Order: sequence, then C-alpha cells, then structure tokens
Amino acid sequence: MRPGNRNLNQLRPLSFEPGFTRQAPGSVLVRSGMTIVLCTCCIDTKVPEFLEGKGQGWLTAEYGMLPGSTNSRKARDKAGKVDGRSVEIQRLIGRSLRAVVDLSQLGERTLWIDCDVLEADGGTRTAAINGAFVALVLALKKKEAEIGSWQRIVTDSVAAVSVGLVEGEARLDLEYVEDRDAEVDMNLVMTGTGKFIEVQGAGEEATFSRTQLNELIELGELGIRQITEMQKNLIG
Amino acid sequence: MRPGNRNLNQLRPLSFEPGFTRQAPGSVLVRSGMTIVLCTCCIDTKVPEFLEGKGQGWLTAEYGMLPGSTNSRKARDKAGKVDGRSVEIQRLIGRSLRAVVDLSQLGERTLWIDCDVLEADGGTRTAAINGAFVALVLALKKKEAEIGSWQRIVTDSVAAVSVGLVEGEARLDLEYVEDRDAEVDMNLVMTGTGKFIEVQGAGEEATFSRTQLNELIELGELGIRQITEMQKNLIG
Amino acid sequence: MRPGNRNLNQLRPLSFEPGFTRQAPGSVLVRSGMTIVLCTCCIDTKVPEFLEGKGQGWLTAEYGMLPGSTNSRKARDKAGKVDGRSVEIQRLIGRSLRAVVDLSQLGERTLWIDCDVLEADGGTRTAAINGAFVALVLALKKKEAEIGSWQRIVTDSVAAVSVGLVEGEARLDLEYVEDRDAEVDMNLVMTGTGKFIEVQGAGEEATFSRTQLNELIELGELGIRQITEMQKNLIG
Amino acid sequence: MRPGNRNLNQLRPLSFEPGFTRQAPGSVLVRSGMTIVLCTCCIDTKVPEFLEGKGQGWLTAEYGMLPGSTNSRKARDKAGKVDGRSVEIQRLIGRSLRAVVDLSQLGERTLWIDCDVLEADGGTRTAAINGAFVALVLALKKKEAEIGSWQRIVTDSVAAVSVGLVEGEARLDLEYVEDRDAEVDMNLVMTGTGKFIEVQGAGEEATFSRTQLNELIELGELGIRQITEMQKNLIG
Amino acid sequence: MRPGNRNLNQLRPLSFEPGFTRQAPGSVLVRSGMTIVLCTCCIDTKVPEFLEGKGQGWLTAEYGMLPGSTNSRKARDKAGKVDGRSVEIQRLIGRSLRAVVDLSQLGERTLWIDCDVLEADGGTRTAAINGAFVALVLALKKKEAEIGSWQRIVTDSVAAVSVGLVEGEARLDLEYVEDRDAEVDMNLVMTGTGKFIEVQGAGEEATFSRTQLNELIELGELGIRQITEMQKNLIG
Amino acid sequence: MRPGNRNLNQLRPLSFEPGFTRQAPGSVLVRSGMTIVLCTCCIDTKVPEFLEGKGQGWLTAEYGMLPGSTNSRKARDKAGKVDGRSVEIQRLIGRSLRAVVDLSQLGERTLWIDCDVLEADGGTRTAAINGAFVALVLALKKKEAEIGSWQRIVTDSVAAVSVGLVEGEARLDLEYVEDRDAEVDMNLVMTGTGKFIEVQGAGEEATFSRTQLNELIELGELGIRQITEMQKNLIG
Repeated sequence: MRPGNRNLNQLRPLSFEPGFTRQAPGSVLVRSGMTIVLCTCCIDTKVPEFLEGKGQGWLTAEYGMLPGSTNSRKARDKAGKVDGRSVEIQRLIGRSLRAVVDLSQLGERTLWIDCDVLEADGGTRTAAINGAFVALVLALKKKEAEIGSWQRIVTDSVAAVSVGLVEGEARLDLEYVEDRDAEVDMNLVMTGTGKFIEVQGAGEEATFSRTQLNELIELGELGIRQITEMQKNLIG
Repeated sequence: MRPGNRNLNQLRPLSFEPGFTRQAPGSVLVRSGMTIVLCTCCIDTKVPEFLEGKGQGWLTAEYGMLPGSTNSRKARDKAGKVDGRSVEIQRLIGRSLRAVVDLSQLGERTLWIDCDVLEADGGTRTAAINGAFVALVLALKKKEAEIGSWQRIVTDSVAAVSVGLVEGEARLDLEYVEDRDAEVDMNLVMTGTGKFIEVQGAGEEATFSRTQLNELIELGELGIRQITEMQKNLIG
Repeated sequence: MRPGNRNLNQLRPLSFEPGFTRQAPGSVLVRSGMTIVLCTCCIDTKVPEFLEGKGQGWLTAEYGMLPGSTNSRKARDKAGKVDGRSVEIQRLIGRSLRAVVDLSQLGERTLWIDCDVLEADGGTRTAAINGAFVALVLALKKKEAEIGSWQRIVTDSVAAVSVGLVEGEARLDLEYVEDRDAEVDMNLVMTGTGKFIEVQGAGEEATFSRTQLNELIELGELGIRQITEMQKNLIG
Repeated sequence: MRPGNRNLNQLRPLSFEPGFTRQAPGSVLVRSGMTIVLCTCCIDTKVPEFLEGKGQGWLTAEYGMLPGSTNSRKARDKAGKVDGRSVEIQRLIGRSLRAVVDLSQLGERTLWIDCDVLEADGGTRTAAINGAFVALVLALKKKEAEIGSWQRIVTDSVAAVSVGLVEGEARLDLEYVEDRDAEVDMNLVMTGTGKFIEVQGAGEEATFSRTQLNELIELGELGIRQITEMQKNLIG
Repeated sequence: MRPGNRNLNQLRPLSFEPGFTRQAPGSVLVRSGMTIVLCTCCIDTKVPEFLEGKGQGWLTAEYGMLPGSTNSRKARDKAGKVDGRSVEIQRLIGRSLRAVVDLSQLGERTLWIDCDVLEADGGTRTAAINGAFVALVLALKKKEAEIGSWQRIVTDSVAAVSVGLVEGEARLDLEYVEDRDAEVDMNLVMTGTGKFIEVQGAGEEATFSRTQLNELIELGELGIRQITEMQKNLIG
Repeated sequence: MRPGNRNLNQLRPLSFEPGFTRQAPGSVLVRSGMTIVLCTCCIDTKVPEFLEGKGQGWLTAEYGMLPGSTNSRKARDKAGKVDGRSVEIQRLIGRSLRAVVDLSQLGERTLWIDCDVLEADGGTRTAAINGAFVALVLALKKKEAEIGSWQRIVTDSVAAVSVGLVEGEARLDLEYVEDRDAEVDMNLVMTGTGKFIEVQGAGEEATFSRTQLNELIELGELGIRQITEMQKNLIG
C-alpha cells in the first residue's frame, strides 16, 4: 500500500501560488505533497556570446536545493565541487522549456529560469518543470508590452511527472520514500498536446522489460494530462 | 517623505510564519515589508574538529540570496568566487546567536542556521537574525526530549534592526531605496534585555558626528523592543 | 542517404583491442567508426567512506575527452568549471555497469572505470559503455586469484547504442554529423539478456510521438544484440 | 595589569617607515608594537567595468597575512577557500579610504591598496588602515605631475584604532593576548577632523551596555587623535 | 644490470605512429618502451590577448596523464588543485618547441600542442617533446596551402632524452624503476643541429660533481642524435 | 655595459637581516640589490599523511610575491588559477633544501619554509634559496633544546645564483632588466662543499652551445662561493 493510501495512479495534492515573490517578473510557488519549489523567471536583455547578433533569444535554467530542505541538512555547494545531480536536473529543465519556446520570436533576450527547492519530498525536478512553465508564461505576460504576445513565443505547454516500479507495482508521482526504494525510476516530460519531450527511465541496480516500460509510459501520460489541465486553468 | 508615508520611527509590517517547511526541525518564513527570508535550523550530532571531545556544542550560520530575489537577477555564486557581502552577513548572524546560546549546555551538537532570502527589499540581514532566533528556539523545542529544556540553552532573545541617515533624517528599518541612498547605514543587534551584541555603523563615502551616532542608536533601540515583543509572543 | 551509404539499421564498423595498455589490469581500445575510446579498469582495495565496514564493494566511472579529440580543439576542464555533459555521461556509465555487477560479491574493493575519448565522431558515451564492460571483465579475470571467479560478480553483460530521428528517419548508431542534426536523440542501455537498464530519449527543441518512440526502441534493441555478440566472443 | 605595564589609554609604540619598497609609487612599513604591516599603493590607468566612461576613479584594497606572520603557521589561502575574515577586513579598508578620497577628482584611475601583514600581534586591520592612508598620499604625491595636486583628491586624513573590554576594563589598542580574551572588541575609524567613518563593536559571546559603549568610543577618539598627529607630521 | 639487460647507453625501443587520430591536423602516438603518449597539434586562428594585432603567432602546450596510465590509478585533477608536476612539464614542452619555431612567420595563429600520457613507464616528458615536434610538423604540412611552407616556420628539429645516475652508473633513457631510484635525474632538450635548449639536472636528495655533470651531458647528446635521426626519417 | 657599471662576474650588494620578524622561529630579510625577500621557517609537530609513523620528518616550501612587489601591480592568485611559475619555484626551493637536510634526524616534524617577495628586481628564486637556508638554520638553533643539535640535521650549506647570456656576454646574478633580455638564463644551486644540487639552463627562444654552457657554470660557481661565505659568517 502506498503512503497515505494513495491509489497507484493518483497524483499528490498539487498547487500553484502565482506571484509568491514580486521582484522577478514571473514567480510561482509549487507544492506537490510535501515538496515545495519556488520557480522564478527573469528576463535579461542580453544573450550569451555565441548568439550575439543572430536576432534570436535564449533560455537557461538553474536548479538548487536549500540546505534545510531535506531531512538531514544538505551542505551548500562548495567552491569547485561539482554536484552532478543538480547539473543534470538544470539541463533537463532548460531542454524541456526550450522545446515549447520559439526563441526566434524572443528577440535578443535571455529567459532565466530559477527553480529552488525549499522542501524536498521526492519529485523535485518534475515539480520544478511544472512551475517553471508557469513562471515563464507569467513573466512573458507581464512584459507583453515590450516583447509582444506570449502566445507567439510559447508554442505549447509542458508538464512532467515521475513514475516508477516500487515493490513490483507501477506507481504515479513517487514521493521520497517510494523513490528511494524504487526498482525503476522514470521521468516523463510531455507537451500539452501529448507529444514527448523527454523519456528518462533507469533501473536502480535493476532492469526492466519492454512490457514494464510500456506500462510506466502510459501511467505517466495519465498524470501529465491532469497537470496540464491545472496549468491551463492558471494561465488562461 | 518616506516611501509609503512611513513615520521616521516606524517599522515595516513584520510577520513570522513558523513551520513553513517541515523537514527541518525549526523553520520560519519572515516577511518584513517586501523582504522575505526563510530561516531553518537543523541539528547535527557532530561538532567541528576543533571542538571534538570537549563536551560542548557549536552554532554556525549560512546566508544566501536566491537568484530571482532581486530586481535584476543575481547570479549564483560561481565556484571559487568569493561573495564578500554574504560572508560578512553569515558571520554576523552566527556571532549574534552565539551571544545568547550557552554552548556548554548543548552537548556535542551543531546548530546549523540557514537564512535564505526569497525576496530582497533591504534589511535582509536583520530579518535573517530575527527569524534565525525563532527557528533556533523552534528546533530546540522540537528536540527537547533529546536535548533537554531549551531555556537552559538559550539565555536571552536576540533581535536586529537597521537605522540610517537618509536625506539628513534618522530613519528606522530602511527599505531598499532608502538603504541605497543612505549617507550612513547602521545595524544594531541587541538582546531582549536591552544589551548590545553588535553595533555596526558606516558612512557610505560620508562621515557622521558623535551626536548623529547617538541619535541612530536610540532609534534602533526603539525598533528592537517591538521586534523582541513579537518574538516573545511567538515562542511563548 | 546516410554518410558512407550506411543502411538505417546498420552499425558502424566496431572493434575492440584488449590490453592496449598494460599498467591497468583491464584495458581496451574501442573503435566505432572514427570514434576511439580508451577504457581502463583499475581495482582499489578501499571503498568510499559511506560503505566502509559494510563488506561490499563499489564501482565508479569517469569520462573525459582529450583536447585534440574533436575537430576544433576542446579546452581542458578549468579548475572549478563544471562540464555538465561529462558529469551526466560518467554517472550514466557508472549506473549502467552497477546494474550487472553484484557489489556484495566484490569484497571491500572499488572498481574504477575510466573512459577517455581519444577521437570523437558521435556515440562516445555508448562506445564507452561497450568498452567499459569489456575492461571490467578483463580486470576481474586478471585478479581472479585474489577476488574469485568473475562470473560470480558479473551477472549479465551490458551494451549501449544510440538511435535517433534524422530527416524524419529512424537511424541506428548516429555518427557526429547525424547526431548534430537529429530531431530526436535516444540512448539505450540493455543487458545481454534483453532487459533495459536505461532509456534516455530527448527531442532537441522538437518532440516525438508514441509511435516514433516505439520504432526507435526496436531499432536500438537490434543494434544491442549485435554488440552483445561481439562482447561475448571477446570475453569467452 | 596590561602586558608591558601599558596604561589603559596608552597606544603601543607606533612607527612608519615610508619608501620601504621602491617599485610601488607609495610604500610604507608600519610597526605597532610587534605588529608589522607593509602597505603599498599602486595606480592603474583603468577603472572597473562598471565605471568605464564615467570620468571618475576607483579605490580598492586587499589584505593578506604571510604564513610565517603568526605564532603557529597560517596556511595560505587555498584555491576556492574563502577566508571570511580577510574579506571583511579588506572591505573595511577600502570603505574607510574612499570616505576621504574624492574619486571624481582622480580621473579614470584605480588606486590599488595592498596591506600585507608580515607579523601579527593584534590590531592588524587598524595598523593597515593607518599605513594605507600614508601609502595612498605618498603615491599621489609621486604622481602629482600626472594626476594633479593630491590635496584636491584627499579631503581629510583617516586613522583607526581598536578598543575593548578586557577583564572588565576599557583598554586602548589591544595586542594579541588582550584581543583574544576581550569580552568586547571595537574598531573605530575616524577622520582627522573628528568625524566617524566606521564604528564596529561586537561582544564575543558577551554583551555590553550603553554606558560601556560610550566609554569605549571616547577612549578610541583619544587614540585616533594621536595617530592622526603622526600621519600629519609624516605627510607634511 | 639494467632492466631487460639494456646497455648503459642504449635507448628503449622507440616508435612513432603518425595520424593515430584524424580530427586534429597533427597527431602521432609515441611509444618508448612501455611509455605511450598521444601528441596532437591543433591550429587556432586566434592569438592570446597580449599578442593581438602584432602580426605574429603563438605556441602553447598542455600535458596530462590518463587515470589508468599508471600502476596505481592516478586521480584526475580536482577543481582548484594544482598539479605542480604537470604545470612544470607543459611549460617545458612549450619552451622547447618555441625555440625552433619562428612565430613571426606563423601569422596570427596559435599552435596548440596536447601531450596525453596513455601509459607511463618513465620518460613521459621527453617522449612528449619528441612526439610534439612530429605532431607540430604534421599539422603545419597539412595546412601548408593556408599557412605556407612549414620549413619557413620550423627552423630546426627538437628532441629530448633523460639521463641519470643510478647505482652510481650514468644511464641513458631511464625507465620508471630506474627513475624512481636515481640519485641524479637530468633531462636534456637539444636541437637537431646539436645546440642546447634546456638542461635540467637535479639531485634527488643527493648532489653531483662537475665530472658527473659532464658525463651525463655527453650520454644525453648521444641519445638525442638517434632520436633526431628517427624524426627526420618520419618527416622527410 | 651592465646597469650600475657592475662587472660581468660581480654579485649585487647582498645582505641578510636575521630575526626580522619574531613570531616564526626562523626569520631573515634578504636584500639582493633591489630584490627583497622575507624568508621564515616554522616547525610543525606533524608530518604529511604519507610519512606518518615512519619516524622521519619532512620539509616543504612555499613562494609568493606581494602584489605591490613589481613595477605594475601583480594580481593576487585567484581561486582556482594556477600560477605555474610560483609552483615551479617553490618545488625548486623545497628540493634544494632537502638535499642538505637529513630528514631521518628530524623526528616526525615538518619544516615549513615560506619565501615571500616584498620587492622584485630579478633573482627572487635564488635570493629565496639563500635566505631559506639561513631561516632554516635559525629555526633549528632556536629549537635545539627540543630537537637536538642542528648540525646533526643540516649536512651542508646551500646557496643559489643566476647566470645568463646577455648581449652575448656571460653575466653573474642578473637583475630584472638583464633577465628580461637574456638569451640564455641559468640557475645553479650548489652546496657549500662545491657539489651541484640543481642545474637549470634554458634558452629563451634561443639555444646555446656546449662551450657557452661550461662558461656559465663556471661563473655561477664563482658567485656561489661568495654567498656561501656570507651564510657561514651569519650562522657561525
């Protein structure tokens, strides 16, 4: 049985609090069960050097965890120490959003997405993607006078969810104790129109069959449809 | 006239939201005007090497600002780059709390205070100290069964406030636009019983007389008494 | 048409040169088309701190590219600069091998896998996994007197291949010019007995349908069966 | 009783050796008791990026301690390791000097102040400020043909001294063994005309009353008047 | 007696495999006994900032050892950790080649030499110099249409060898077990026309007389003549 | 003609000021012309990990230049940036002193030599070696009660000098303007009994003949004999 008696195909309670901070043009606090992520989007009027003068924009994402976000305190990154996991996650967030942003419509601007985990109970990378998309749209809406219609820039919505095999069961939206014990862990990133952006499935010192792979993908598609619905209601 | 028509001796709206996160034993979200700081306190059952075997505890603090906390995005610390301001602030937070903590009563434990600025509008270091004290007491209360009464460890309360000379006026609790233009900027850290822990006053490419110094200190004492009151109501 | 008139489902010429170097107990030079990777396996009689005294072993992998391996020189990692791509790849190599190694049979030893790219023409991470498995077995065989039968430790073989959508076609084992232009890029890691270890598919600023996902997976399975065959002939 | 039978309000023997080195335009060796600091001032014909084209100058300071300067060898800064104390001190030195330098009269030049401690026996930061002011004026005098009269640029003199509560007594100019045991430690930076630039007082795990604060400030004012006198004699 | 019964004045088997990789314009695999070094030369159409606009070129070298190249695995350089030995060696390689390259004939180009040790059994720096010269000429030949005749740029050949006092005997071309036990270790770098570029002799916690110094130099000259011969045959 | 009309075989004015600082057990200020180096020797009662429990000692040296020591200010080492030249020099100083120290007589202690350049006018590394030897002996003498007779530990004296070919002339003890223009630059480190410790000669984009090599070595021997004499008078 799952913690809190959740059904195998049931998401944790999910909420978005837009405008949680007011300095960044886009800001949303995402809560997914006990996981809390603050996503902001800032807009810079420069692009990285490799894009200068090409008339297009850029989008980049960073991800971090506050030291007090986990059960035993997580030390801050030391100078010169590579936290491989954070690097992987922020690359994933960036790729996922770029798949639904038409950078050629942005002008020479950089969209900076920051996803900072205030509390971690599993699924922080998927919560970050779900919030990052909202923060992105909020920021573009606020700057519409300057940049033009956000619908011209954002071509689709993007949402993400985790699925996994735990005690032999395919489960949707793993929380920490499930994730820790999962035999197989998979993250799906999909558009609002049902296309895949990323499929990342890995056995944790275990393997999985083609049939299990299919089952996990279908469970993820189910969850993503619900998250997409919430995002659409929020953005209008 | 001050922004928002505040009186010269008036604090910004101040609130504490205890238990904002639940993984860390002590957690509080402090809001002071538009400044928002998340303070957590974790307890580690080790001490730094220089204290091992001495039968006493340690308290250390870290301070950071999220990239989206400021009006123009603040880059994360790069590996190897020293952010002198953050270092100064976290040393100040640590010293301030150690002045009211009896480390000999703590056993060989380390109290880790983390103060992370979610939104910055001036006065982040004083908001951090005010919240850090609350997070500290909340953590010790939660672990009372294990560590013993928190009143044996915490000998007094601690609060902090900024004061400054702006347009020739002594003002209490500067917000960002005032801080930026202040001729003199001073931070006071005091105990609940009215003793000084720190006095840090600096002219920003300006100087100040002995009379002005006294005026600023008195204004700060006034503000700290109010903050102390709120902390006491919260902790009980 | 593919470069060199390859069929859509055809691997590049693949070869393994075992014992390329002699200091490391396991060493193999892998050539896949113009991609050349030197894989070595060293065995250390210590484990990381978090495993000390637990009676089991560890396996870790590192991946690097020589500066002269690419068409325009690739600068060496500067101190303190994170190369996110290398970090992702070495974590993938480590996870993939740990899925087929029974660390509890290894004793308190660490297997160090190093995969260094001497020349890069696409598919360096999959070539690295294919060679790393061979280097690992060669090292265990050489130390059999000391560690015991390698078959007790290695529970299956592991191989990897890339597939992708290029110009709308599903292609096997992409070389650099194909990889650069691929709409979708996928890496599969599988065991010799046909189970999945990792599935990583990503649209490069593009998306893909469920049907395309299935087509790519089947093409990858085909390639992995051939690589597995070569590995088995080599190891005996 | 104080070490060496000093009176409570007595400075240590203080001397300045101008022109100790000859490559830097301004150079002075300051000795305050057993504390020895070499202060140099170099002038660069560039300003930091944020000031380019604004027609004004900049002043920046760095502070370091030689490894052999202390009783037990002090390790050099390792790459990537932040020495918070040094950062605080060099920021203090820079702010203190900028308070008496009219940067708009300097042209687009940077004044680089370096204060390196050859031997440390307490009071290194105040000795550094006292010497830095002298080195600054010496450098400006040497370059007067090029930059113009130094009196147009330097608007006042600056001097610093430490005071503290030790064994309940207010003492002037603490040496190391006093500083180590001080209940309260305060550094004052003032101009030659008696205005404050910085007041930094901190209880070391102790607190202090308003009366004690006033007593310390008056003692410091006394010491600074004597140091100012020596600086004026030197500079002419 | 020497390992493998070599004569005191006998080089180890030496071979050059030109074109070992094909992405870099110049590439050669050097084998000297069990030492294997891959040397590549890339040509960049920029020069370092200090040379911009001066109409001349630059040559720079980097040296590294793969982790599996030594008997016990050699950890990769950590961020921020200085490997003094590598720094010394790459500076030596750069100086040695610049002595025979007329940078004024190169145009504003940088020659990047990379020497990576695949397997180490002593004499890696001298093997690196011997190979670097070959890689350099191969790269210039391949780009002759663009840069002009390589003979105009390369004014002489360069070769290097180690000599040392081991068990009181002067020996040529030390392998690892000899180098480890040598009382005196000397590296000679000379041109094809018999001039010295570098002489570096050091007693390893030992000293040596003028007579011994002369004996070592003569032995080195003998070895360098043979290596020069092989390089000339290769380059034509 | 040489600067200051020095003879080709004449040293610059050389002086040693022992006990320049008093915290470190050994301390000497060396002046060689306008070059000024502060050398200290500290003694630690630990050895590096690789020597623990072996009953012998260690000696290590560090070298640095103060920012104001050169004509145009030299930036301090940034975190993570390798200053290859400093690394080479401190390795040379360490090797040179270890050649005359019997570490087996030292007990499990580490001798820390620090050589910091206060002013640089060429020949800083040789001045550093000359002073380091003096600081080493002074420290051992001061701790004789604890460690035993210094003559049992120090087996010979050590001195160093530079020689070079400038405008075709062999010159002794080059100052900066000569060093900058030298065709060949050589550093010799020798014992008081006339044995070689190090010979490092390099053509700066130039080469030299066997005859020139011999001439330079003889000139260096001459200078070292004079420096040795001064060291002996100082130490007694």
